[in-house]
Amino acid sequence: MDLNQNEDVFSAFVDEYQKNFFDMLFRFESKAEPIKEAWTREDGRGHGLTCVIQDGNFFEKAGVNVSRITIPLSQGIYQQMKGRRVPGSNLDQIDMNNLAQYDTYANGVSLVIHPINPFCPTVHANFRTIRIKERETGKLIDSWFGGGSDLTPIYLFDEDAKFYHQNIKDAIVEVTGDDKLYRQYKKECDEYFVNHHRKEARGIGGVFYDDFNLESFEKGLQFQKGVAYANLNSYEAILKRRKDTPYNDENVRWRSFRRGRYAEFNLIHDRGTKFGLMTPDARIESILMSLPLTARWEYNYHPKEGTEEARIVGVLLKPVEWV
Amino acid sequence: MDLNQNEDVFSAFVDEYQKNFFDMLFRFESKAEPIKEAWTREDGRGHGLTCVIQDGNFFEKAGVNVSRITIPLSQGIYQQMKGRRVPGSNLDQIDMNNLAQYDTYANGVSLVIHPINPFCPTVHANFRTIRIKERETGKLIDSWFGGGSDLTPIYLFDEDAKFYHQNIKDAIVEVTGDDKLYRQYKKECDEYFVNHHRKEARGIGGVFYDDFNLESFEKGLQFQKGVAYANLNSYEAILKRRKDTPYNDENVRWRSFRRGRYAEFNLIHDRGTKFGLMTPDARIESILMSLPLTARWEYNYHPKEGTEEARIVGVLLKPVEWV
Repeated sequence: MDLNQNEDVFSAFVDEYQKNFFDMLFRFESKAEPIKEAWTREDGRGHGLTCVIQDGNFFEKAGVNVSRITIPLSQGIYQQMKGRRVPGSNLDQIDMNNLAQYDTYANGVSLVIHPINPFCPTVHANFRTIRIKERETGKLIDSWFGGGSDLTPIYLFDEDAKFYHQNIKDAIVEVTGDDKLYRQYKKECDEYFVNHHRKEARGIGGVFYDDFNLESFEKGLQFQKGVAYANLNSYEAILKRRKDTPYNDENVRWRSFRRGRYAEFNLIHDRGTKFGLMTPDARIESILMSLPLTARWEYNYHPKEGTEEARIVGVLLKPVEWV
Repeated sequence: MDLNQNEDVFSAFVDEYQKNFFDMLFRFESKAEPIKEAWTREDGRGHGLTCVIQDGNFFEKAGVNVSRITIPLSQGIYQQMKGRRVPGSNLDQIDMNNLAQYDTYANGVSLVIHPINPFCPTVHANFRTIRIKERETGKLIDSWFGGGSDLTPIYLFDEDAKFYHQNIKDAIVEVTGDDKLYRQYKKECDEYFVNHHRKEARGIGGVFYDDFNLESFEKGLQFQKGVAYANLNSYEAILKRRKDTPYNDENVRWRSFRRGRYAEFNLIHDRGTKFGLMTPDARIESILMSLPLTARWEYNYHPKEGTEEARIVGVLLKPVEWV
């Protein structure tokens, strides 16, 4: 099997998904002009395309970013990968005393969408491959998939949460034959997207996987595509359901308050953001495009019991099995 | 010398400064009710008083917090302290294999003030003592002062920056006889309050010191008082100068944008915030009261050349010797 060909196939999926997702947003947005910025790293070891909507009539801010970056394998990255990777993986072949002869190549799409209407949820997703190669020879040492998608409502509609999880679960069952991986990655999502300092989940979850392979590249790609399009299609359907819900200033205030929590997670806890910020000469604007246009921090604010605001906080304090 | 008596003297300064600073704010604020919340840790090993103004007619958000907390000396804290402490300090007496028999006691006041008018700067200050004690005997092993104060204008008035630094410098010269410590701690401030991922300073600086003693406790206390009241008095004078400056929506937008940068520093880089968030059962609301009421993140926004917005960014990219 030609591994470089696999990489091209994955890149084609990533580019197509970016286009399809960004196009979908313009079935709702009619004011903002699309911002599309192709970028390359000055050292030539990375490039990407950042697509953004800002200050629109439907979206406060939306970013869909493709990036392909090669960085030398460092002690820190190696230990992190090794810790997550299953024993017996090809990572064992790596000469620990000579990490600098290897490169890490990350290729993927990531997106964060913040609509204006507080009854439309925020969505986040990320689909990527990671490859470890010998720099001189280009020999592939190891590779795997990572990613996931998850939903962060400002106000909770149980039917939307169930619908979103059901679509992702169905997509995974279709590829793998059972719901084992959905269960596992749903749990990992619940454990990862948490503002630990508040013991509060960021949203109502989805799936999250940092290191996985199926029996073949094709099967793994099918899995990524399945989750990616379940995310796109169910998010579009939820936006259609909620887009005309009327809202008032109090709803907007609660939206900005929840966006503060979103910013907290991304800046304090998110591994991807941290990894990005620590990468020398990283493109900060692409990394931090995930931050909301507006956020709000009120001292010691807790919504009144019995309100919709209090209900969603209750759910965020204790993950739910939606399907 | 009775060291516990010293601690009482320092506590009296801290409490009085909190009161004086919070009272000063109400010479400007006439709408918001003061929020004053006394709190104690459930394990009995800490207490404090958090004073807040929120959504006022003059201040968007203002917090002045006193806290007195005892935590066991951990390997992490010990290594950090040891790294900063001068060689030959009493920390050398500590039995490395039995760190758990020691306590760290932190006693101090910290404040962050975010006015509404974009021509009024944000100010931050912190004055504290740290003491290492043997838990069983209460024997004091080592103690030192820490703190500082710094200004973060949204729009830059050079005369305000000079005035603020001059006042702090004068206060230090009055206690120590020369400007050596001002120079040193001004530099440490410039090096510390930096959004390293953007290579951009948070503000126009002030002084920052994490570990210092003078020849006596009284002298050290004088130093803390000198900086603290230079900060209070010069901040009040600057607010008086700028409070009636008219502003428009564009100025407010820039203010919210800069507050996004403030939140980035506090959530990503600030050691005090990180330390707080990692403390088990910490009072999160007191730690994060430093966050602005409103913040804004615009994708890849850079102010136009020749504007006041561009001018301050230029200064933040390269620290200035103001006095």
